[in-house]
Amino acid sequence: MDPIAPPADDAFTWTRKHLLGLDDLSADEITYILDTAESFREVSTRSIKKVPALRGKVVANLFFEDSTRTRMSFTLAAQRLSADVLQFSAAGSSVKKGETLRDTARNIEAMGVDAVVIRHPQSGAPHMLARHLNASIINAGDGQHEHPTQGLLDVYTIRRRLGGVAGRKVGIVGDIAHSRVARSNILALRKLGAEVIVVGPPTLVPKAIESMGCTICHSLDEVLGELDVVNMLRIQFERISSSLFPSVREYSQRYGLNAQRLGRAKPDILVMHPGPINRGVEMTSDVADGPNSAILNQVTNGLAIRMAVLFLVNQEHRS
Amino acid sequence: MDPIAPPADDAFTWTRKHLLGLDDLSADEITYILDTAESFREVSTRSIKKVPALRGKVVANLFFEDSTRTRMSFTLAAQRLSADVLQFSAAGSSVKKGETLRDTARNIEAMGVDAVVIRHPQSGAPHMLARHLNASIINAGDGQHEHPTQGLLDVYTIRRRLGGVAGRKVGIVGDIAHSRVARSNILALRKLGAEVIVVGPPTLVPKAIESMGCTICHSLDEVLGELDVVNMLRIQFERISSSLFPSVREYSQRYGLNAQRLGRAKPDILVMHPGPINRGVEMTSDVADGPNSAILNQVTNGLAIRMAVLFLVNQEHRS
Amino acid sequence: MDPIAPPADDAFTWTRKHLLGLDDLSADEITYILDTAESFREVSTRSIKKVPALRGKVVANLFFEDSTRTRMSFTLAAQRLSADVLQFSAAGSSVKKGETLRDTARNIEAMGVDAVVIRHPQSGAPHMLARHLNASIINAGDGQHEHPTQGLLDVYTIRRRLGGVAGRKVGIVGDIAHSRVARSNILALRKLGAEVIVVGPPTLVPKAIESMGCTICHSLDEVLGELDVVNMLRIQFERISSSLFPSVREYSQRYGLNAQRLGRAKPDILVMHPGPINRGVEMTSDVADGPNSAILNQVTNGLAIRMAVLFLVNQEHRS
Repeated sequence: MDPIAPPADDAFTWTRKHLLGLDDLSADEITYILDTAESFREVSTRSIKKVPALRGKVVANLFFEDSTRTRMSFTLAAQRLSADVLQFSAAGSSVKKGETLRDTARNIEAMGVDAVVIRHPQSGAPHMLARHLNASIINAGDGQHEHPTQGLLDVYTIRRRLGGVAGRKVGIVGDIAHSRVARSNILALRKLGAEVIVVGPPTLVPKAIESMGCTICHSLDEVLGELDVVNMLRIQFERISSSLFPSVREYSQRYGLNAQRLGRAKPDILVMHPGPINRGVEMTSDVADGPNSAILNQVTNGLAIRMAVLFLVNQEHRS
Repeated sequence: MDPIAPPADDAFTWTRKHLLGLDDLSADEITYILDTAESFREVSTRSIKKVPALRGKVVANLFFEDSTRTRMSFTLAAQRLSADVLQFSAAGSSVKKGETLRDTARNIEAMGVDAVVIRHPQSGAPHMLARHLNASIINAGDGQHEHPTQGLLDVYTIRRRLGGVAGRKVGIVGDIAHSRVARSNILALRKLGAEVIVVGPPTLVPKAIESMGCTICHSLDEVLGELDVVNMLRIQFERISSSLFPSVREYSQRYGLNAQRLGRAKPDILVMHPGPINRGVEMTSDVADGPNSAILNQVTNGLAIRMAVLFLVNQEHRS
Repeated sequence: MDPIAPPADDAFTWTRKHLLGLDDLSADEITYILDTAESFREVSTRSIKKVPALRGKVVANLFFEDSTRTRMSFTLAAQRLSADVLQFSAAGSSVKKGETLRDTARNIEAMGVDAVVIRHPQSGAPHMLARHLNASIINAGDGQHEHPTQGLLDVYTIRRRLGGVAGRKVGIVGDIAHSRVARSNILALRKLGAEVIVVGPPTLVPKAIESMGCTICHSLDEVLGELDVVNMLRIQFERISSSLFPSVREYSQRYGLNAQRLGRAKPDILVMHPGPINRGVEMTSDVADGPNSAILNQVTNGLAIRMAVLFLVNQEHRS
């Protein structure tokens, strides 16, 4: 299959210029991104890991929060499509001189940038840019709102490892309240027909999350046996106030995965984690590196998903 | 027109290896750069924004002061000409280990770099490098001395928006005393035959500036009605000592542009600013984003100017 | 000669996937790297400084210590081979979030990286990566252990300037005890048949170093007259505790090179330094910039050595 052509599907045409969140997307659109990723995944296994799909296009990475991992993934995805990449980080920039996000972005756009990948601590920052810029905007994480490419790569990983998403029972464990990863995962999983159970201490799992179509459980042991997939969110010590959070030891005892606890799960349960892992907290090393773990697959699949997204939003046939 | 060929002009051959400042350049040379920029400007409007003009050449960005905007512009310009770009910044470098600028630069040159773009807090740093290195040197701002590509992009923007520079009346408003942007602008404008009036409080506008061929005025309101162009310099709060500077409120009242004040100017006056703007200080948002503003044009044109400069100093026929 | 083909030598085939240190390498292997560098050196003198040897390959620079110079050299080497380069530095990365080196590296590898260039303060870090990753690992300096590409570029520089290494008498002056540069130099020089004398104050020259096959001398003046090459190590003020180190003034008087002292050496002695130089400490400026100095040759040759190493470890015929 030609990796620069989207998968043939006469019933569907991609029309979006931006990827702001999964809330807006239909199940068909999500599936179309996964299918496109499938065709790009093969490129990364070649000796020459490059296709000319976006040659002469410019992708700007605007990161207002540290994120080596996501930035590197988008950078490699753009390079693999032969695009040029412009790196911007808040440190040492005009942002320190008091420039507004909108001015920063409009200036970068005026240099002829085709797509802007933005990570920002403020929810809605990518949407604001989409209103004011002509470039395509890709949300790489905005506040506690969404992290759509993470949600996409997670459902893509489930589809590849389990053969499908619909009907699977997925547990998401940890700080649901403050997690954009949880939100984008729930959205993608529900749209593709999975059942979602969110698991964590009451202080970190708000009742309101049920309105997203998921069930709440405060005990991992209670639901672990039913799950096809368990997605262990990273505890972001740097962000959580201690009043909401039990001790690390207590958290790990109640919500961490170790070999013994995993022994009570389905034998082929898929263990996921968005990284970076706090080994010994969310899970022990034998689980992280064991046969159930899909953690490195997530990284590999993330690259294919980001290639697909960069490719699709740069299509000429967009609305 | 073939964008990698300089404009045909039998009467002129580019011979300079460096761009150290506009003081050295003749009007013909400045015009030749603008004409070359014109031919490159079109590249940025293509779907594939790339020409092979500098393929296999290496451009090193040596920035000893923060400047996301100028650095990005030079980076994109080099990428668009298919050059490789090497990023150097003082933080985390041998500079911290006490290495001299000359040693740093000679080391970078020994790696086979063709052109060095340098920004440095010390006036004359690019000239020193030009004496000791074989690579082409491009001044991206040295102390309070010059910022030649900014001067070039400003006259280029005036030429594009007003059809020409000669005979136009241009006001430059703000901290004239400490501004390399002001100096390079005055030089370029005077050489191309514009009339220049510098405007600002007496503490920020030295009498000696008249020797550059411009008029001094301490009241914006007094001259605004005559101007074809007004270039509002950025107030660099981080650099100005408070003893020289009135309060922000007072400055903005006397020297800031708002809709009311603009109403007393010529209807098609061109409003410029080198960015980043302090909205509400140098001008209000309605002016910055209004029809008279050329601010984003300046950014776009800056890219074309930098492509032209990188291209010309890398020519084989140089002296 | 085709620069992307290794030198024809029917008796030898390169089989190593990694370059972890020179301790492992045979004299034939070292010579083969130098011969390959010779064929790549020519590329840097062309107008188009690029060969397609590693097109579509990805090289990741993982630097856990500051090193502009070595990082730039590896970056340029990879670009010149048409590889894509991914920059990683510990600042602002997941490392700050407590991630282990192994997790960081495995994540980067999962993105489809072909070679990892690593600098790390801990001796043995590259070897650990080599055990756990499938990518090729290149040691760019690990703790006080080895800096193999520096050792290679130093013997390559001697070979180019003096016509050969075997039988030459080489002095290495300075902090031998803590220097990975000294260790990799001694290994390369001894394997290629040079005689090595290490010179420095007793606190910085451990007796045990004799087991590497070199002689110890505590007076530079005593041996200078016999040397064909003198390699002046950088005094790393930031790393040496004052109890081991005499005053800078005293060090420079006893172990620094100036014109007067150089006058007592062989007329064509080669003066080397890994950079960055502390002018006035390890040597005076007239020596550093004089006809005996090979310091900028070392930089130029370093690029060719790194091209050769990146090329060789990425060969398909590797074991």
